[in-house]
Amino acid sequence: MSVTLINLFAVPNGKEDEFVKLWEAIKVDITKQPGFISGKFHKSLKPDSRFNFINVAVWENEEIYWKAFEKSAAPMKEKLHQMGVEMTPALFNVLFEY
Amino acid sequence: MSVTLINLFAVPNGKEDEFVKLWEAIKVDITKQPGFISGKFHKSLKPDSRFNFINVAVWENEEIYWKAFEKSAAPMKEKLHQMGVEMTPALFNVLFEY
Repeated sequence: MSVTLINLFAVPNGKEDEFVKLWEAIKVDITKQPGFISGKFHKSLKPDSRFNFINVAVWENEEIYWKAFEKSAAPMKEKLHQMGVEMTPALFNVLFEY
Repeated sequence: MSVTLINLFAVPNGKEDEFVKLWEAIKVDITKQPGFISGKFHKSLKPDSRFNFINVAVWENEEIYWKAFEKSAAPMKEKLHQMGVEMTPALFNVLFEY
C-alpha cells in the first residue's frame, strides 16, 4: 500500500529563497530513490502562515520510504537546522480521494 | 492559477471515527461547490502524530475558494469545535511537482 509523506516546514523570514534552492537540489536526489512515485512542493500564499512550506510525496510503501530516508534525510536535517527551519514530518494513508 | 488548501487536524484520541464520518458528509458538500477540482483526505499511520488527519484540496483559484468557504466552512467549524478538534488551514501554490 502506498504511503504519503507530508512534511510541514516553518522557514524563518528571509530564508525562503535559500530554502527553495536547497529543496531543488534535494528533489533531484529524492526522485532517484527506488520506490519514489511523485511529489508536490507547496509554498503558502501568506508568508506568515504557521507552516510556510509543505512537501507532499508519495512512496510505494512504508519500508521503501524508510530506506530512502536513511540515505538522504540525515544530511538534509543538518542543513535545515543551520537555517533555523523547523520541520514536522509524518506518514499518511489516503483514506479517500474526492 | 489553482490554489491548494492544506488543512491540518489534531483530532482527540477516541474521536477519530466520528471525525471521519463527519468528513464523509463534508466532502459531498465540497465536491458540489463551483471551482472545486479534487481532494485527498489523509490519516496518519501513527495515531500520536501531531496532526493525525490532513486534507489537501485543489481549487480553481483563490477567489472561488473563499466563496465556497463562506458557504460550507462555518457549520463545519462549529461541529469540529464541539469535538475538540483543532484545525490549521492555509492556502498554498505548488512551486514544483517532481
